[in-house]
This record gives sequence, structure tokens and C-alpha cells, in this order.
Amino acid sequence: MTCPLALHPDRLFPADSDTRKVAQRLYAEVAGLPIISPHGHTDPEWWATDAPFGNAAELLLHPDHYVFRMLYSQGVPLGALGIGNPDADPRESWRLFAERYHLFRGTPSRMWLDWVFAESFGIDVLLSAETSDRYYDTITDALTTDAFRPRALFERYNIEVIATTENPLDDLRYHKAIRDSGWKGRVITAYRPDPVVDPEFEGFLDNLKTLAALTGEDCFSWSGYLAAHRKRRAFFASMGATSTDHGHLTARTADLSRAEAVALFACVTNASVSAEDAELFRAQMLTEMAGMSIDDGLVMQLHPGVYRNHNPAIFEKFGRDKGADIPLPCEYVHALRPLLSKYGNNPDFSFIVFTLDETSYSRELAPLAGHYPAMKLGPAWWFNDSPEGMRRFREMTTETAGFYNTVGFNDDTRAFMSIPARHDVARRMDCGFLAKLVAEHRMEEWEAADLAADLSYGLAKAAYKL
Amino acid sequence: MTCPLALHPDRLFPADSDTRKVAQRLYAEVAGLPIISPHGHTDPEWWATDAPFGNAAELLLHPDHYVFRMLYSQGVPLGALGIGNPDADPRESWRLFAERYHLFRGTPSRMWLDWVFAESFGIDVLLSAETSDRYYDTITDALTTDAFRPRALFERYNIEVIATTENPLDDLRYHKAIRDSGWKGRVITAYRPDPVVDPEFEGFLDNLKTLAALTGEDCFSWSGYLAAHRKRRAFFASMGATSTDHGHLTARTADLSRAEAVALFACVTNASVSAEDAELFRAQMLTEMAGMSIDDGLVMQLHPGVYRNHNPAIFEKFGRDKGADIPLPCEYVHALRPLLSKYGNNPDFSFIVFTLDETSYSRELAPLAGHYPAMKLGPAWWFNDSPEGMRRFREMTTETAGFYNTVGFNDDTRAFMSIPARHDVARRMDCGFLAKLVAEHRMEEWEAADLAADLSYGLAKAAYKL
Amino acid sequence: MTCPLALHPDRLFPADSDTRKVAQRLYAEVAGLPIISPHGHTDPEWWATDAPFGNAAELLLHPDHYVFRMLYSQGVPLGALGIGNPDADPRESWRLFAERYHLFRGTPSRMWLDWVFAESFGIDVLLSAETSDRYYDTITDALTTDAFRPRALFERYNIEVIATTENPLDDLRYHKAIRDSGWKGRVITAYRPDPVVDPEFEGFLDNLKTLAALTGEDCFSWSGYLAAHRKRRAFFASMGATSTDHGHLTARTADLSRAEAVALFACVTNASVSAEDAELFRAQMLTEMAGMSIDDGLVMQLHPGVYRNHNPAIFEKFGRDKGADIPLPCEYVHALRPLLSKYGNNPDFSFIVFTLDETSYSRELAPLAGHYPAMKLGPAWWFNDSPEGMRRFREMTTETAGFYNTVGFNDDTRAFMSIPARHDVARRMDCGFLAKLVAEHRMEEWEAADLAADLSYGLAKAAYKL
Repeated sequence: MTCPLALHPDRLFPADSDTRKVAQRLYAEVAGLPIISPHGHTDPEWWATDAPFGNAAELLLHPDHYVFRMLYSQGVPLGALGIGNPDADPRESWRLFAERYHLFRGTPSRMWLDWVFAESFGIDVLLSAETSDRYYDTITDALTTDAFRPRALFERYNIEVIATTENPLDDLRYHKAIRDSGWKGRVITAYRPDPVVDPEFEGFLDNLKTLAALTGEDCFSWSGYLAAHRKRRAFFASMGATSTDHGHLTARTADLSRAEAVALFACVTNASVSAEDAELFRAQMLTEMAGMSIDDGLVMQLHPGVYRNHNPAIFEKFGRDKGADIPLPCEYVHALRPLLSKYGNNPDFSFIVFTLDETSYSRELAPLAGHYPAMKLGPAWWFNDSPEGMRRFREMTTETAGFYNTVGFNDDTRAFMSIPARHDVARRMDCGFLAKLVAEHRMEEWEAADLAADLSYGLAKAAYKL
Repeated sequence: MTCPLALHPDRLFPADSDTRKVAQRLYAEVAGLPIISPHGHTDPEWWATDAPFGNAAELLLHPDHYVFRMLYSQGVPLGALGIGNPDADPRESWRLFAERYHLFRGTPSRMWLDWVFAESFGIDVLLSAETSDRYYDTITDALTTDAFRPRALFERYNIEVIATTENPLDDLRYHKAIRDSGWKGRVITAYRPDPVVDPEFEGFLDNLKTLAALTGEDCFSWSGYLAAHRKRRAFFASMGATSTDHGHLTARTADLSRAEAVALFACVTNASVSAEDAELFRAQMLTEMAGMSIDDGLVMQLHPGVYRNHNPAIFEKFGRDKGADIPLPCEYVHALRPLLSKYGNNPDFSFIVFTLDETSYSRELAPLAGHYPAMKLGPAWWFNDSPEGMRRFREMTTETAGFYNTVGFNDDTRAFMSIPARHDVARRMDCGFLAKLVAEHRMEEWEAADLAADLSYGLAKAAYKL
Repeated sequence: MTCPLALHPDRLFPADSDTRKVAQRLYAEVAGLPIISPHGHTDPEWWATDAPFGNAAELLLHPDHYVFRMLYSQGVPLGALGIGNPDADPRESWRLFAERYHLFRGTPSRMWLDWVFAESFGIDVLLSAETSDRYYDTITDALTTDAFRPRALFERYNIEVIATTENPLDDLRYHKAIRDSGWKGRVITAYRPDPVVDPEFEGFLDNLKTLAALTGEDCFSWSGYLAAHRKRRAFFASMGATSTDHGHLTARTADLSRAEAVALFACVTNASVSAEDAELFRAQMLTEMAGMSIDDGLVMQLHPGVYRNHNPAIFEKFGRDKGADIPLPCEYVHALRPLLSKYGNNPDFSFIVFTLDETSYSRELAPLAGHYPAMKLGPAWWFNDSPEGMRRFREMTTETAGFYNTVGFNDDTRAFMSIPARHDVARRMDCGFLAKLVAEHRMEEWEAADLAADLSYGLAKAAYKL
């Protein structure tokens, strides 16, 4: 059975007809705004080299853990999809996906993918076993054309600025190449120091050696280590970075005395480190990074609360980022107090906090962001970056934190082609949420229109200093 | 005041008229599908003996802790309702209920009961003080007729299969009697080993002795104990069981070495056992049971996170299952890791996990079920088996786990006559949820129709191998 | 830009037109009911002296931590708003607020404030930089008139009864003055013993000395201390109190033997007290207070789970209640068991429990309140006292606890003029919730009308014995 594929112009808007009309009007004003993408995981090499993307499976299947995790959960081996297996025939991998496209009903992946298929590739039938080859050929052929090279897509997608994420050991060669190329697209980096901040990261001590070599600092002394961070932050800033990003197991922060910090650093730079010392060190480093942010102006992001690599068999065979990361309950009130007590009253410091634990939205995060001048709420993240997740985010944070303690949308993806679709979903959901407030006479429509533009564009630009 | 009772054909459908029309169409296709009831607590003796049910109070009041807990919470003594008190006049017990029927406004009990009154007994006035005797007589009289005997109701309710729950010490005589009777109704058992798995269960050591006697195994040696489980599982399977069920205080699992397990078993078969040893033993037994499921093909269900018998005065006077069981926060990510690390990648293993802690839906359970091939999400359970609870279940799990990592509906009840009403509520709520997705152009109507049938019938049949 | 301000008659009602019509009809019947305000923090001195309120900033800005916390979170220093700073020009403080009124879009503060501006002061333009002086003058001028004196407003707002909150050391002179004045307004107190129950309260030991002096009891012996409570409770009851209120860090309760309690009391009345002893003492005192409630009939309220004074810089400079109180995860099932085991089965005891942790609504509080005769659910509290918060409260508690185990609305405010607005929001949201049940054929409209009156008026009056 071949079914038509058509993106409905009213998709995601509330069904009530009066409310929908408001949503349509609000959305019409923001649909065409440029994309601000202040946090994500695209690859700067794409725009540095502007080399064409490969085939359909390589472009849409292999980098998207949302997609292959669903297939894996229903019994499809990752190797058959081409993950960690260069011998897999990409057309056959694609077929495994196409045959099971019904599994994605009701998921955001389905919405993003249909957008890519229809809007970017002009396909007008639904993906299925019958249309698998047609899809594979259409997409793979298109990728050989100039219109589908990374810079062309960047421009076509109306991206005003995109931030990638690199660690302090990265030489940022691709960012330099983009600058040197004369191309006008604004691709910036962000400072993600986990490999040199987390004593439990693979190769932590070797990473410190590399950091020392890069900076000329003694990274096995506390003061040298901090100085190395400052140097790399400055280098990242010189390559456009306006933010740092911190992926931690918990939101714990600490404010140790200098003597305690020196002693702790000595512990964690030994060959063996206790779990508690590692956690305390990460906690202390968040506060150190906050202090540096106040000095150098980089916006600070915290993404806590994920059990990484939950499935040992998958981790051993395929490595990180293979869809086996699972959210944990995450406490913020006690955890953030040391950092916020020290720096939270500084209105020039911008500290953007995310969560995968929705229970903290109304209970902890909105009250904290609704009080501390420095703290802002990051948007609905990862599993919550979905229509229902976005709706719950607004419903559970707005009344306490308001809209202006939030920071607009993050696509947070390595799936480049899904970026416009994700921003479009966020704009539609925000317009729908605002339309409901208007329809229920909780806000005037002109105020909602102001907010729609802020949520789609202005707040991200301001919060990330872009 | 006597008020009419009429079940509205559009009950539970969304109020928006366009959305409602979609829901009506979806529901029309699934309303008549047979009932698959893969998990519940009805009594097999009913169908073995086909003896008539007693009176209205005995049928509808005494076995339903949803109903008598509400009356108790508003000051009605359990004894006056006939609970643990054979001297209570059932007509007067019924009156206490009828006079307070307004307490159930907005509850699922009200919806199930009205269905039973209207659909099963043809009553057309609302239950109240004024109509109490009329109700009591109508129901009690009907129960003397052949049309209201257990097998006749089973057939009238279009039940394709129903699973009861028995413990390993049960001889399954009623299941055998049903088979021997030649009656065509499919009533199967499920293996619920709590009394011989939980060292804190009343009479645990005696239960092991009985298990030894039943199986001829030495149930005080670890290998004999496991062999006894295997034998009883095989016996249950021979009597139709396709699943096991495990009611635990937490979701904790363990994967001990054989030597550790032997030592732990020695501890828990002593007269006194520590709380930690008991918990670790239960944890280890979940993993053992998972291993056996892979061998014998029985689907494994886990129902964790309830503080049983919270009210000591009620427990002492009336015993278990008297409405004083209260849900607890329940952690799954660390808890399930030992079991999932060992068996979670096996797509032939079916591990269905439930929760009473809704916070785990989007944070833990949907991400886990959306990754591990073995794991599926059980439906909204117990207090959450309600219109709003079902809606939240879909809203919080679908975007991450999809529909196909869920397993359809469980009625999970000992209130037999409410079974069709419960399935009807679930079908209506699922059709309403799907209709919203259609109305918001997040799904095509033909896809929603596919899903409506799967959620109402197909998924339960497949997941439970029925 | 000057924009009109008009309160829409359908504000907060569901947008769907059929549902809205039901909500309109339900609301029409309850909009004019008198206000029952059984819990709040208004100042009895207002009605004792009937002195005019000061200026706009003093009336609406300074006492409302919802308002100034939002301004603070966006970088406005508290001192500039006049908080802890008598030198601030109130007109300029008001201007800082007026210029930033857009920050309140989508918050309940915006809704309450607009009501006060439009309904109480007759203003018809939106607050903004342009209209700041006009607002300031209109409000400040009105406050000099008799119509805006406290007793006149009390009568205009149709308040049947309002409870303030005082601690046991208070001499209740203002309550006495109100009685002695012959004015008919019913202003009662409530017994909030935190300063003499919490060993970590500032000045705890001095407070015990004062309590001893007031009561003639030896407050450094356990029996004398309890006797002093009994005496002060009786005194409060003689001044109209029908309830006690307990603000605790957690919901923990204890049921110690007399010997243990004596020993613990000796510990906490020493100069230094451990955190665990302080917590255990608070826990024990909740159970003691429950026992006294059974004796003297005072309704008992518990407000747990707030990290008070999270921001040390603000606390040091400005003191308590400055918007830096943050909710914590709060456990109830284990915590309340000692108290409920002892007194929970007494239907004459009324124990009203609140939460700021919404996760406990469906998981713990509704199941507990739906079982124990003594326990009732307090309404959506503090950050959750908002349209979305109220909606979630009903959605997550009704199906398990029903409506009749809840106690109507609390405004819980020190912002006097917002009281009618808050009750109006609650009535509108409850009517909207009920209207949805009617529109979805889950309830008859006449039942919803009954409930609307109960939720707006009857349940509060009954639960608080008013």
C-alpha cells in the first residue's frame, strides 16, 4: 500500500477552531524567522569541507539515536542498520527502517522525518516497505547535487548561527577552516570540558597530559589546571564560542576552600579515584566554571541526570551514544545551592539549567529560575524535546518562572537535516500554547505575538549572547 | 430525588466536535472486538462451578477495594459494609453505599458501576438513597437467573481469554475442572510466586515446605528450590499459563554469582532474615525468573512499588487487600540494570513492567522500553487505571517508547462485572487520544484506526502470547 | 503604547464552545457566593485599627513575594523596590514594576493584579511605563478614601470569614480588639506553633521561656511544655481559631514512647541540638498535635517540603519570606505512617495535608486521603495556586480521592486585595474542570452544579468547621 505524504499546514495546532485560528496568526509571524541554534552536536567538518553527505542511511539513520533505538527496541540488530558495521548494505539497512516506519507513529522522529522527506527532498508518498527503494534512491541521488551540500543546506534553512560542541582538547581546525574560507555562515563552537573535568571519563589522566601540552600549563597542579581551562576558554571564545556546556551525572555543585580543592585535585589525579571524590570534583568544577564565566562572559549550560551507557553489551560492542542513555531522578535544590549562593545573584552571569526529570520543572527549576537573577531554564530537553514534552514544559514552568526566565529553543541534535523541522515543531507548539492562553482570555493576542517572536528567536539570541 | 441513568454514547470522547467525530469513527471499529484479559484476579472457581453469584453487596461491594475504600475514607466502618462481618445485612450495607454514591463523582468506579447497572442489569435510574432497595432487588434477583451465572456472563461479555493469578502452591483444581467440563471459555492461570519468593511473606518457610512436598524437590537447597520453580512453572504452563507475575516492594534486581546466591538462600531460609537480605533475595529471584522465562517462554510481569497494608488497625482486623495499599516512589534505572544487562537484549524475552509512580513514565520507563528489545511497558495500573491516568500514560510514554512497546490493556480486577466496562473505558480513552493526534494532524486517520485495533486487541494478544 | 485593560467575562474557561457554555452556567451560580478564607497570612491589625493602607507600592508590591521575586529574577535589586529600604521612593519603585509588567505574562500574579486594578480601582488601561504614574496616583489616592479602608474592603469583598495565622507567643491583641470593636466582620486566628516546636527556629529556647511566662507552665519539662500548648490552643480557640497549621521541612511524623519523648525533649532544649534530633522532635510534635486536635477539635493543617531562605545573601540582608523559598521532593507514605496509624482512623479528626511536590498528588496523597477517614487533601498550594496548578491538582487527585476528600480553596496570602481575585480564579478553574467532565459525559450537569457550590464554599466551611 502506497499512501500519500503531505505536511498539513495546521499540524500541531490545537483542534479547537477558535484557538487554532489564533495559533495560525501567531505562527504566520514567526514561521519565517531565522534559526538560532545555540546548542547542538552537528559536525563542523561539514561546513569546513562542504563535502557532500553520503547516502540516505548515512545521513538519516546512522547519526540519529532516536531512530535506531526504536528499531533496536523492536528487535532489529544495530549491525544490520549499519551501526558499527561498514559491511552492511545501506540500501538494506534503509529497508529495515522503511518496513518498520509504523513504529514511529506518535513520535517526534516521525514528525521530523516526514518534514525532511517532504520539505527537503520533495517526496510525496509515505515511507514503507513498498517505497523504500524509491526513498533511498531519491535521497541518495539528491545528496550528490550541490543543493544538498552542507553550506547550501545551511543557507536554505535560514540558519543565522549554529553552535557545535567541542572539548578543550579539540584544535578547532574545522572552525578555523570555516572562518578562513570566507563563507559567511556563522558556525561557532561551545566549550564542553567533560573529558578533562570528569575523573571517570575514559582517559582522564591522558587528557590532562594533552591539555598540559596544548596550554603549556602544569595540569597536575590545581592552579595550572585552572589556568589551562582559562586559556582554552579564551581560545574557544576567539573561535566564536559564547557558551560552555557541562554534561554531569547529577546537578551537584560544591564550594570548597582552596586548600580542600587542592587536596581533592591531588586525589582525582591519582591513578585510582573514589566515586565520591569524582563526584565532588565534578561538583567543585561547576562552581569554578561559573566563576570563570563571570570573568570571561561565557554563558554556562548544565545538562545533568543521565545514566550513560546503561546497556553494557551495546557499549562494549558499539561504544557511546547508541541510544542506551537513560534519565535519572535529578535533585536541584540542595545540589545547586553552593554555586547559586556564590554566583546566583549576579545578573550578568547566565546559567542555563536543563533537566530530563520533568518532576523538577514545577517543583524546583521554575522556583529557582523565578528567583535567582543568574539562572535561566533551558528548554525541554532530549526525550522531552517533543510536542507533548514542550507543552508540559510550558504548562509546568510558565506560571512560576514566566516566559522571560526561559531561553527559547535548542535543537541539540547531530541530525542536521532535522534542525528546521525541530525548530518548526517548537514554534508551532509555542504558538499553540500561547493561542490557548489567548483563547482562554489569559493574555491579549498582541502580547502573545510579542512572545511568539521572543520564544522563536529573541530569547535564544539574548540568553546566549548571539 | 430520582434521576435518570443513561450511558451517553459519546462518553469520554474529547469535547471538540471535530475531534469527537474522529473518536467516534475509531471507536466504532473496535467497540465490538473480543476482550483479551491477560492479567487479573478473578476467581477460577466461578467458571469451574458456574454457581450463581450471591447478592448485590457480595457481587459489587465486597470484592471492590476501590469502592469500599472511598466509603471508609468518608467515615463508613468496613464492618457495616459487610467486610469481614458476615452478620451485616447486605441490603443495609448496600444502602450505606447507595446513600453516598455522590462520593464517587469523577471517579472511575462511578463509570464502571454505572456501566454495570445500565448495561448488565438494565437499570435506568441513578443509584441513591431513594433507589437503593430497587437496585438491591433488581440485582439480587437477576443473579438467580441463568443469564447471570459466571459462564453466561463470560460469553455475553465476549471474553476471548482471561487469565487469573495463582501462586505455586495452588493445585489449579478449578482450572482443571474448567478444562474437564468441556466448556469452551478460555480461562488460564498465571504464575505468581510471591509467597515462595518473598522471605517476608507470611508463612514463607512453611510455604517452601509445601512447595517441596508438591514437587519432590529439596526446597531448602538453592538448586532444589530453583528446580521446584521450574516444575511448577511447567505445570502452570500446562494449565494454560503464558505469563508470570511478580509483586515486589521495589523494582530491584540482582545478578549474584552462584556462590553468593547459595549463601543468600541459606540466610533467607533461616528463621530470622534481615530486611536487606530479604530485599536482595527478591532482587535475585527476579533475575532467576527472567532466566527461566527465556527457557520456558513465559512472559514476565513486574508490579513493584506498593506499601502494602499501610494501616495496621485495618490489617489486624480485616487482613490484606482492604484498600490500605499506598504507592511509593519507584526507581527503575539502577534497579533493573542487573536483569536487563543479562537478559534485556533478547528479543524473545518479554518483560512487562508496570508502575504506580507516574513520574517514571517519561523519565525512566519509556526510555528503557524504547531501547531494550525485551522490555515492554505495562498499561496504566491500579490508581492510574482511570480516564485521566490512561491519558497521562499515553501522553508521557508514546513519544519516547512509541505505541508498539506497550502491551494493550489490563483490567487487573477481581470485580468481574466491571471487566467489560474497564475495557470499554480504555478503548474510548485510546480512541480519544488517537483522535486528538489525527485532529492535530500528527497522524493519519487510517494509521489511528490500525492503532486503535492494536491497542484494543492485537498488542495484548501478541505481548502475552495468547 | 497604552493598551486597554478589560477583564473578559469568560477568562479561564475552556475554549471549546460547548464546554465553555457549561462552565458559564456553573460559574454563574457560584460567582456570588461569600468568601471562606480558612488559611492565610493577612494582618489582623488591619481590621483592628481600620487604618488606611499606604501607597500603591506598599499595598501591592512590598507584601507580595510572587511579584518582587519575578522582578528580582530579572535583575531588579530588592532595595530599589523598597524592600528593606524605607528610603526608596515608592513612586519610583512602582515604576520599576510598571516598566516590567510584561514579565508577568502567563503568571497568576498578572491575573490577580489585573483583577485588583480593574475591579477594585476601576482602571481601564494596562500597567506599563507610560501608565505607571497614573496607576500610582489612582491607587494611592483611592487608599485615602473610606471605601478602601480594611473593613470596608472586607465587606465589599463579601468575606464571610477569614483566618489569620499567629504563633503561640502572640497575645492576639488585634483579634481581641476586633471583637471588642463591635464590628461584625469575622476574623479568626489559627495556631501556628513553629517557633516553639522547631528546635532550629531562630530563638527557640527564648521562645520557650516566653511560652512559660505566658502560660505559667514549666516549658522545659515535657509535661509542662505539652500543657502549655494545650493552654495556648484553648486560648486561640477562644479567639475563634478552628485550626492549627504546621510548616515543616518534611512530612515526617513519629510516635515515640513517653520515655523516649522525654529524653528527646531534654536533648532539644539543650543549647546545641543535632539536625536529626530536631527533625525527630518536629516529627513527634506533629503526632502530639494530632492528639490534642482530637481532644480540642481544632482542625490540623500540615504544610511541608520547603527549603526556606535558599539564598543566603538575600536572607542576611532582607530576612525571611523574600521569595527565596524553594520546594523540595516530599515523601508522605513512610513519613505520615506513625501519625496515621495512631489517629488516622478517627473520622472526627480532620488532618489537612498540603504539598508543593505535585508528584505526590496521584502517587501518595490521593491514595492516602482516599483511604484514611481523618485525612483530607489541601488545595493546590503556593507555586501551584495557579490556573494550571489547580487543573493538575484536580486531574491528578479526583479519580482516586474524589472531590469530597478535598477541602475547597485556600488563598494563603498576605496580599489582601488579591483575595477575591484568587477565589475567583479557583472558582473559574473548578467550573472549567467540571464543565469538561460534563462535556465529556463523565458527569451530569446537575451534579457538577452541586460540586461547584461545594468546591467554592461548602467544603471549606465543613472541613474547617466554620
